[in-house]
Amino acid sequence: MTERISGVLAPVVTPFRPDLAPDVDRWIAHCRWLSDNDVGLAVFGTNSEANSLAVSERADLLERLVAAGVDPGRLMPGTGTCALTDTIRLTAQAVRLGCAGVLMLPPFYYKGVSDEGLFRTFAAVIEGVGDSRLAVYLYHIPAVSQVPISLALIERLLKAYPGTVAGIKDSSGDWNNTQAMLTQFQPRGFDVFTGSETFLLANMRHGGRGCISATANVNPAAIAALHRRWQDDRADAMQASLDGVRAAFQKFPLVAALKTAIAHWGRDPGWMRLRPPLVELTEGQAGELIESLKAQAFSMPGLPAADRIR
Amino acid sequence: MTERISGVLAPVVTPFRPDLAPDVDRWIAHCRWLSDNDVGLAVFGTNSEANSLAVSERADLLERLVAAGVDPGRLMPGTGTCALTDTIRLTAQAVRLGCAGVLMLPPFYYKGVSDEGLFRTFAAVIEGVGDSRLAVYLYHIPAVSQVPISLALIERLLKAYPGTVAGIKDSSGDWNNTQAMLTQFQPRGFDVFTGSETFLLANMRHGGRGCISATANVNPAAIAALHRRWQDDRADAMQASLDGVRAAFQKFPLVAALKTAIAHWGRDPGWMRLRPPLVELTEGQAGELIESLKAQAFSMPGLPAADRIR
Repeated sequence: MTERISGVLAPVVTPFRPDLAPDVDRWIAHCRWLSDNDVGLAVFGTNSEANSLAVSERADLLERLVAAGVDPGRLMPGTGTCALTDTIRLTAQAVRLGCAGVLMLPPFYYKGVSDEGLFRTFAAVIEGVGDSRLAVYLYHIPAVSQVPISLALIERLLKAYPGTVAGIKDSSGDWNNTQAMLTQFQPRGFDVFTGSETFLLANMRHGGRGCISATANVNPAAIAALHRRWQDDRADAMQASLDGVRAAFQKFPLVAALKTAIAHWGRDPGWMRLRPPLVELTEGQAGELIESLKAQAFSMPGLPAADRIR
Repeated sequence: MTERISGVLAPVVTPFRPDLAPDVDRWIAHCRWLSDNDVGLAVFGTNSEANSLAVSERADLLERLVAAGVDPGRLMPGTGTCALTDTIRLTAQAVRLGCAGVLMLPPFYYKGVSDEGLFRTFAAVIEGVGDSRLAVYLYHIPAVSQVPISLALIERLLKAYPGTVAGIKDSSGDWNNTQAMLTQFQPRGFDVFTGSETFLLANMRHGGRGCISATANVNPAAIAALHRRWQDDRADAMQASLDGVRAAFQKFPLVAALKTAIAHWGRDPGWMRLRPPLVELTEGQAGELIESLKAQAFSMPGLPAADRIR
């Protein structure tokens, strides 16, 4: 890869049919809307319910997305699973399809594992895939994975696989951690993305590359605008406006809240559905969310409505 | 199923070849040795590194084990994964092969999920498999999964799926929790297995059915003997002896320690290998473990040596 992906990416939410199978048509339509709003596609992230999808379901969805004509140069699928062999399979597929990079969780079942064990995992994946086009973005989300990616591990991986170990999504929510990575690793071509737009402006001002944020599913244009115009006089005001929208969503379980907004503004109740173990918002929660978004004049212009999808 | 499985089961450790693929022959030989020592096979447990195996690898191994003539009536494979559809696939296979039951982790990626979400998961698996032969043993191992199985969830599952929700492996290490389940649920045919032999005697004395324990991989005969003779005068002394052996293993990362003992007493260094993110013991740790086991006159009689496996 010569030019690295940057900007704003959405961990694309996954719609489900009544039988809980992924709804491919609704999903591709949402991916297109996001692309039209200048947002890259980090499909199969935490907010995609990707870990509730079988490996075969993920592989099938990615194949269909690229076949549908979505630009793989704007794709960063999540490929990290608990199992080395599954991770190799999904990563190799992403490379074969020409994806800009992959977002890789560490194996997350065993807790308290050593950096040596994590190093061996990433090394085995990189060598198992064995393709110079591979760009790995590490996924640090300790509150969910419970398996953090330490600075020492990044240092070791960068030394062993320069070029291939391309960056990180830092979902720690800890700006000190993000800043340490920006200082130590960004100058060496290790691209730092924050895990939410809350830190987008700060990240850009310190040399980072963008953010990969759940709310980019619902507020893509405004977040992408801040990424383009972060040196603008109005940047702080734009950040404050993004923060207001995000706060409204964060009052609720996030995946359910995102789907509620898409269902509402897309007039498509089928979008409310989640795959267990996640559950939808109650009616009361959904009403409260929509009201608080309307109070901020939030909307989702151009969102494909249910009757326009098939 | 008319007669339920009981007694001592081992979460069978999984040997790996130099290329990190599962070593099927060594694995089946170890399964046979465990069966000969009166221990059932909870293959694909935490100590099996099952969560480091691809779903396809697990399915293939189980198929081969049954084809090799191991009695499926003594098998309780782990089938719980993060993904509903993978869990249904593995569970349906186990039922088709005639396994006595399945040991089912809750989906463990998302944390802080509701009992409603977990209920829907187990319900969707049970209904997705749709076979009256299915016996589900819930797997409560909060320190690793970080997703506990509450008493309220068990109550709800037992009411909705009596007969199918057959019991639990309680790896909380919290005797109060085990005792609460023995009191509330064992009388209703919900079979309680403790997650280690440390609580085997206490469990039997309170009406439980046995244990599913990592150290049954290395000390099967003695643990199975206590299960058979728990009403014996010598039962407390037998428990104390088991506790001594377990303490020696627990000083080290457990899976690596179990494999070290098998490698030593089986004169088969290949057994030392783990799949990342787990790593083997250092030479110093391995030496210390073997010495402390020898000091207790520990041995593994009849363990298949490397030259007898193929």
